[in-house]
Amino acid sequence: MKCTACKEKAVVSLPSHHAGFCEPCFLRFFTNQVEKGIRQHKLFTHNDKILVALSGGKDSLALMLELKALGYNITGLHIDLGIPNSSVQARSIVENFCQLHSLPLIIKELKDENLMIPFIKKRLNRPICSACGKIKRHFFNKIAIENGYDVLATGHNLDDEVARLTSNTLRWDKAYLSDQGPSLPAENGFSKKVKPLWRLSEFETANYAFLKKIDHHISTCPYSRGASFTKLKYFWFNLEEESPGRKIDFYQGFLERGRPAFQTDEQNTTKLTACTKCGYPTSVELCSICRIKELVNSEPNK
Amino acid sequence: MKCTACKEKAVVSLPSHHAGFCEPCFLRFFTNQVEKGIRQHKLFTHNDKILVALSGGKDSLALMLELKALGYNITGLHIDLGIPNSSVQARSIVENFCQLHSLPLIIKELKDENLMIPFIKKRLNRPICSACGKIKRHFFNKIAIENGYDVLATGHNLDDEVARLTSNTLRWDKAYLSDQGPSLPAENGFSKKVKPLWRLSEFETANYAFLKKIDHHISTCPYSRGASFTKLKYFWFNLEEESPGRKIDFYQGFLERGRPAFQTDEQNTTKLTACTKCGYPTSVELCSICRIKELVNSEPNK
Repeated sequence: MKCTACKEKAVVSLPSHHAGFCEPCFLRFFTNQVEKGIRQHKLFTHNDKILVALSGGKDSLALMLELKALGYNITGLHIDLGIPNSSVQARSIVENFCQLHSLPLIIKELKDENLMIPFIKKRLNRPICSACGKIKRHFFNKIAIENGYDVLATGHNLDDEVARLTSNTLRWDKAYLSDQGPSLPAENGFSKKVKPLWRLSEFETANYAFLKKIDHHISTCPYSRGASFTKLKYFWFNLEEESPGRKIDFYQGFLERGRPAFQTDEQNTTKLTACTKCGYPTSVELCSICRIKELVNSEPNK
Repeated sequence: MKCTACKEKAVVSLPSHHAGFCEPCFLRFFTNQVEKGIRQHKLFTHNDKILVALSGGKDSLALMLELKALGYNITGLHIDLGIPNSSVQARSIVENFCQLHSLPLIIKELKDENLMIPFIKKRLNRPICSACGKIKRHFFNKIAIENGYDVLATGHNLDDEVARLTSNTLRWDKAYLSDQGPSLPAENGFSKKVKPLWRLSEFETANYAFLKKIDHHISTCPYSRGASFTKLKYFWFNLEEESPGRKIDFYQGFLERGRPAFQTDEQNTTKLTACTKCGYPTSVELCSICRIKELVNSEPNK
């Protein structure tokens, strides 16, 4: 197969774009898609201070590297979850990456908050994933707001977004369907949140990470039993293979024709107040982090 | 496994209803679901004259038998497509069924219209399925309207509806999403159309047909290469197996929360006029049947 752009030997085949690329042309394609994704939904400008959430996985590191290359004002944020082995590895990868590329990095240790994930897990009667997600989102947002960042960027790719959208659609969850997208505006004490890789598939970010020789954290979380959305991603893999381009069409079609239908005047009527304990915005009396803290301070399960 | 209702030995297991049933209780369950489906969306009453489209497959015959048992005023309508072997078998099954159960039956032969499917197929450069569907819907509607029927009923089951809904959603096709459901009201010269089996899965209608010993047409159409929606049905089969009840939740959730979002004032602004050739309602100059007739009268493909 020859490169669609320059006719050299192609190294990556991208049926959904009816294209194949050699290494330099693929990397240019990747950059173009990131830029297009930023432009199409006005994610941020070169005047914005951007906080990039870095898990240590390929997507967030690829995002960080691209935003650096594009000259954006970026700072990394890694949350050390305190999970034995896994968190040590992930943190070290992020630290090495930022050092190698001379990128500013904030590390937030859950240990300082007495919220290490293994500690909470012992007290929970259900899978930890939902609480872990809440804690991460809480500190992403808190640190962005308290340190004056204009926007918080995460490494979610097209497959992540499509799997989440499919899940929201299967439940016809109007609240989520009116909100999902590459950009969530700032409001009520919450930072603006963006997903600059929304146009790029997992296959494409993996190729990018490989070609850019990004050392990334690959071991799955020891606490996740069968990652969520695996079945949905498998369904989409088959559908995309059958008719390349259906995934991005589904997501863009949603943004153009689906989401607007769910964005009515009724939406977002959830009133937020300050958490009675910590002052953080919440729709109930005690914010979710204070509730998790209460749980942690309760008696452990037998 | 014991019958959920009477504790006798169960013969059908229905995880999506958290139930298993013996034969009499399953048949009662089936009837309840048909009645509930008719009631929930006000499909028709005992005062209505109902035309039931009978293909000869298990679903349409099961529907016919149930509506008879429930005392509705029904007439069957079978369209003889003129496909060698297949159509002869299907027609004979429908005729025998209606004779056995003393049910009135209208047979419409496409031969009389010079529209036999094999004849059209020869002149089409694309798969015949879409044209065949148009022709069937045209005559279903025409016969219902011209003979004073209040409503046209088809045997579409939950799996058919869910596969179609998934396909419409994957494309975020607002026009189809605002329209899909168990009942489409009469308007602009089109008969009211209903799907009384919308609450019942294919597995359930197959069990019903088996227990009721309905002799039905099982050979697939010789012209369909891989039935449409097969992949979507397979996806749903897996999802339903994993979390029973998700299929009906998806469909009912759509009717309650999805569809209303797409039913805006803009919809249905397609102006219909009379076909300049036959007078049938159409959005373009010549209705699709007259266009197919023109094609048939043109030179055959080499």
